[in-house]
Amino acid sequence: MPVIELQPVTNFKKPVSSMFSFEVIAKSTESRARAGVIQTSHGAVETPIFMPVGTLGTVKSVSPEELIEIGAQIILGNTYHLYLRPGCDIISRFEGLHRFMHWNKPILTDSGGFQVFSLAKLTKISDDGVTFQSHIDGSKHLLSPEKVMDIQACLGTDIMMCLDQCIRYPATREQCRAALKMTTHWARRCRQSWRKSPNGHNALFGIVQGGMFADLRRQSAEELTDIDFSGYAIGGLSVGEPIEVMLEMADFTLPKLPAVKPRYIMGVGTPENLIELVALGADMFDCVLPTRNARNGQMFTESGTINISNSRYKDDTDPPDAECRCYTCRNYSRAYLRHLYLARELLAYRLNTIHNIYFFINFIKRMRKAILADEFENFRKEFYRRLEK
Amino acid sequence: MPVIELQPVTNFKKPVSSMFSFEVIAKSTESRARAGVIQTSHGAVETPIFMPVGTLGTVKSVSPEELIEIGAQIILGNTYHLYLRPGCDIISRFEGLHRFMHWNKPILTDSGGFQVFSLAKLTKISDDGVTFQSHIDGSKHLLSPEKVMDIQACLGTDIMMCLDQCIRYPATREQCRAALKMTTHWARRCRQSWRKSPNGHNALFGIVQGGMFADLRRQSAEELTDIDFSGYAIGGLSVGEPIEVMLEMADFTLPKLPAVKPRYIMGVGTPENLIELVALGADMFDCVLPTRNARNGQMFTESGTINISNSRYKDDTDPPDAECRCYTCRNYSRAYLRHLYLARELLAYRLNTIHNIYFFINFIKRMRKAILADEFENFRKEFYRRLEK
Repeated sequence: MPVIELQPVTNFKKPVSSMFSFEVIAKSTESRARAGVIQTSHGAVETPIFMPVGTLGTVKSVSPEELIEIGAQIILGNTYHLYLRPGCDIISRFEGLHRFMHWNKPILTDSGGFQVFSLAKLTKISDDGVTFQSHIDGSKHLLSPEKVMDIQACLGTDIMMCLDQCIRYPATREQCRAALKMTTHWARRCRQSWRKSPNGHNALFGIVQGGMFADLRRQSAEELTDIDFSGYAIGGLSVGEPIEVMLEMADFTLPKLPAVKPRYIMGVGTPENLIELVALGADMFDCVLPTRNARNGQMFTESGTINISNSRYKDDTDPPDAECRCYTCRNYSRAYLRHLYLARELLAYRLNTIHNIYFFINFIKRMRKAILADEFENFRKEFYRRLEK
Repeated sequence: MPVIELQPVTNFKKPVSSMFSFEVIAKSTESRARAGVIQTSHGAVETPIFMPVGTLGTVKSVSPEELIEIGAQIILGNTYHLYLRPGCDIISRFEGLHRFMHWNKPILTDSGGFQVFSLAKLTKISDDGVTFQSHIDGSKHLLSPEKVMDIQACLGTDIMMCLDQCIRYPATREQCRAALKMTTHWARRCRQSWRKSPNGHNALFGIVQGGMFADLRRQSAEELTDIDFSGYAIGGLSVGEPIEVMLEMADFTLPKLPAVKPRYIMGVGTPENLIELVALGADMFDCVLPTRNARNGQMFTESGTINISNSRYKDDTDPPDAECRCYTCRNYSRAYLRHLYLARELLAYRLNTIHNIYFFINFIKRMRKAILADEFENFRKEFYRRLEK
């Protein structure tokens, strides 16, 4: 099967204004927690921030209006998925993902590096990039650093990510070192392609790799900082390692990244993870946890998770979380949500998702408020106190 | 397995005010089409009306707020389904279906007669009612006329339906006659139970049966009229017979029903069916067509249906229907809807459903406007002219 080349993006139009900036506006005096503001051409993002995952150009089951009501300020799209389906030739007809999916706030797109290694088949890596077979139809593709930049430019995303080489956990030191070397090589090419491209507006983030080896993480952070990106992500965490190791790696790596740039921990995590990582100085997060678990009937509350299919809720007239002000908790009972879920009604997935995204976004919003008031440590203590009740 | 008896509804509360009335406010001078207003304790319903189907206490994939924005004035629930799952003991904790499902406009519930014959197993009929095995777990149940009234009272619906005996098409004259006899017998018992019950507020409709035999239809209409109901439905249509036969039966039966009461054709139908049945004097309709077909990718427009999965729409930046003002058509393209549908994204079903319900409700709303202006025949001609273009 021939390698399919990306169609030239003939009718892609640059946004009228392109911009990206980040400012730290408050720092905790008791931890490394900080609050900031990112400016993009689609509006501001207040950090720390949780970004709902909208892999295929939709945050599963919810509408853009609902996301805005929930308080979402930025969402994720996925380069690998959108490149394969519906493809850039189609999205470019809408001048990018924003208009295609009816979302006019910022979008960050993952580079596809993670999906190529986790979903695609027959993946082969070379200096030129990654060749792989689509998980949908087996078609063969090459994602080079330059092509990943082109695709994200076509998507018109506000924050683009470099192509990186992800590795499984556990991995040997030699595997991690090789992947790190490739990641830096690709990062440099992404940076060059991004800057010289007419689509080189908006932001490009580098992704730190290095497995669970502190010295490799440092090397990756230093090499990427030398290249100079708009912001920095830490990839390859939450891939199966113990939580202590994940936090140790984040604790070690975050201070190695420029303090004046946003710092993004990819694919993490639970509320407990988020509060610890904010304490360590992380600014941005994304995770499928609230959305995927919602579709499996798990709902997050201040005092832990509940599984809505549990028979104890069958005649429970209370909302999922009595203190929550989301649309779901304001209008529906556990008994009704359980009924919908057991009957596999489509509304179940949506109502659960609305609640969970609201919980994550509101949880981190309250952390931000605590940082601004320099009361983050109190907030953290209170969080654990309630969780243990 | 024992017959499961309905739990006594200990904490069911009657609505503060109960009421039901119907008034014809305009008649076409060129056909039997008419416009009216039904008053219920949950608000008014302007006829002719299309009622979206919410079988299990949810119109699949859409929220009550969306239904209201679309213009829905009344929805359907289903007695058979809600009785089996979640059951009246649970719904009664919410004082009925309205609060359980967060819908404060009128609800009509089908009696379950149709489902007992189409979904349940080992159905046995006697004067006492129908015994059957649940399609969910095989549990054995008896639905008597009195129990069907109790369940609907527990659901707190604004318009209750009598238990009727449905039959397959084709059916012999003798089968139709026997089913009609049983339907009348049960209707009389439903009427008695409804009137003497403390829950006997709101409306009860009789259901005309008689298969495709005009004289049996007349007999059924006369017998039910003698019993005296708040309104009358014609059941057993659109069960596989040719459209001409369906329209012939409706044409014959509708004038046999009291003109001062609402007349409801159950389970019908296409836009073409609706316009013809309104011309014949029908006031109310329900059908799964707009909702079920939406989930299969079929969308209704003035010029016919489109299948959104068709490859011709892959890069189509137009909305499904350029003249439609629904949420979906105002904000999304055929290309995006096709992408969502092919990716089996949950939002696909919802956006398609919103459009289709809007189309049906708006279509019949425009018929009503035409009747009020005594321009219904023009409207009908124009409808066919556009369809044939």
